[in-house]
Amino acid sequence: MKVVLAGDIAAAEWQVWRAALAAAMPEAALLTPDEARRAPGDVLAAVVANPPPGGLAPFHGLRLIQSLWAGVDRLLADTTLPPGVPIARMVDPAMSAAMAETALWATLALHRGFFAYQRRQRAGEWRQHRQRRAEDVPVLVLGRGEMGGAVAERLRPHGYPVTTWGRDSGPLPPLLAAHEVVINLLPLTDTTRGLLDARFFAAMRAQSALVNLGRGGHVVDADLLAALDAGHLRHAVLDVFHVEPLPAAHRFWTHPSVKMLPHAAALTDHRSASAVVAANLRALRDGKPIAHLIDRGRGY
Amino acid sequence: MKVVLAGDIAAAEWQVWRAALAAAMPEAALLTPDEARRAPGDVLAAVVANPPPGGLAPFHGLRLIQSLWAGVDRLLADTTLPPGVPIARMVDPAMSAAMAETALWATLALHRGFFAYQRRQRAGEWRQHRQRRAEDVPVLVLGRGEMGGAVAERLRPHGYPVTTWGRDSGPLPPLLAAHEVVINLLPLTDTTRGLLDARFFAAMRAQSALVNLGRGGHVVDADLLAALDAGHLRHAVLDVFHVEPLPAAHRFWTHPSVKMLPHAAALTDHRSASAVVAANLRALRDGKPIAHLIDRGRGY
Repeated sequence: MKVVLAGDIAAAEWQVWRAALAAAMPEAALLTPDEARRAPGDVLAAVVANPPPGGLAPFHGLRLIQSLWAGVDRLLADTTLPPGVPIARMVDPAMSAAMAETALWATLALHRGFFAYQRRQRAGEWRQHRQRRAEDVPVLVLGRGEMGGAVAERLRPHGYPVTTWGRDSGPLPPLLAAHEVVINLLPLTDTTRGLLDARFFAAMRAQSALVNLGRGGHVVDADLLAALDAGHLRHAVLDVFHVEPLPAAHRFWTHPSVKMLPHAAALTDHRSASAVVAANLRALRDGKPIAHLIDRGRGY
Repeated sequence: MKVVLAGDIAAAEWQVWRAALAAAMPEAALLTPDEARRAPGDVLAAVVANPPPGGLAPFHGLRLIQSLWAGVDRLLADTTLPPGVPIARMVDPAMSAAMAETALWATLALHRGFFAYQRRQRAGEWRQHRQRRAEDVPVLVLGRGEMGGAVAERLRPHGYPVTTWGRDSGPLPPLLAAHEVVINLLPLTDTTRGLLDARFFAAMRAQSALVNLGRGGHVVDADLLAALDAGHLRHAVLDVFHVEPLPAAHRFWTHPSVKMLPHAAALTDHRSASAVVAANLRALRDGKPIAHLIDRGRGY
């Protein structure tokens, strides 16, 4: 089976992917876009990481587009994507585990005030604050997919009362008012873009915290900064941003209530992700069901 | 039953304890040392938090000394403690849970490099590092008591390979060389004082990390600083110190590889600790076995 690898990954990173994919499916011919364009009709599958707009157009025999990334919002923004070709997104168990680790670390830090203790260390201040029980820190997870589910299941055994919310779960504001930590893991779609705005933050409980592990486009940055500046929100842990790397002048870099990660909450694991790709390409070859297909209309 | 409350706790804090203890055992008469000294022979039990040396001497009818703290090293340093009176230390399930939370937070941060990301945020640097799996981060827990056990049990479900070590477990250096995160939860005794010295740190794996949740007296501070300065240890998360509050001039405050907590890894929970005290005092009254008695000779 001829497979084209296409996307905006640096060359060195592609070498790592190519080696991992070749190890996972030695039977496949893994081609660069240049190689693949020599006989474009023979290419049955594309393994992609945000390919350039129009990059897949030459391959008219494509029967599967397999994303290496869990989020497909940038992929779907390409209006020249061949219509009708099924698109699978990445659901990598190692990546879900990493996301759950990050969410748990942030929740523990917010619950126990470890960010405050680190700030006090820098200020030379020795002061304990009240210790609370996990059962008194309700957590709301936005998103009921693989990631949201993995995070909820990781948090619950520690005693946190966890609620998950999806688009079909009913009104959000009463839930926002009832939880202390809100973890965003929604997909970025036309309906969720800008969802975390002034109204959203006003509905959140006073002194609560936001953990954004979804996409930068979910957040209206100015509204989040206003909620933090007003002291309504106590903390924001942010992994994703409208522009990445986050521009140096952005206030998130230096805001005392913002903890930033460089889009590192959950990196794809080459090894396990390649096994996921291999399983899907073999399913395609054998006429079996493809896993993790997305609904283009819904956007995820 | 007459019970004397004695220790170096601030007055406001004693009020909280008194209320919690009174709620847990309304049948007991809770007395200040001054009140208790009016009829010292009637006092059957002392609930203590590091009482002043000699503070318990007047109470010649004592049949139980119940510590509010898990660590009894300072209590036992009082050479005037009435001999022969059983001493119980605090084993508070809420405190063990809090200790496990702190250990898990520190382990997640060390495993995933979250301390490094926070440093990069302050430096304005956007850079991901390699993401590792929990199964590749072996953790050594020193201490096999309530706390050590609670921490090990909390870490294992996340995939960390956890080894526990106690004084009877055989040689420590090979274990230190085989683990990446070392969490100290030993009791402070004559045999463990100063155990974490230059030899100990030299035996630790290069680029490994220390999490000290035991006592400051376990660590030879100058040796730890030398191991950090040499880059042999990557990080130290320290909750306890020789002198507390840690003096302002101590290098731990400003060392870039040290994360400090103000002896807050696990605070006693008034509610659950009072229930533990009440259960022991009722056992004393009813002639039943007292829980969590210590061995004065062994020191814990």
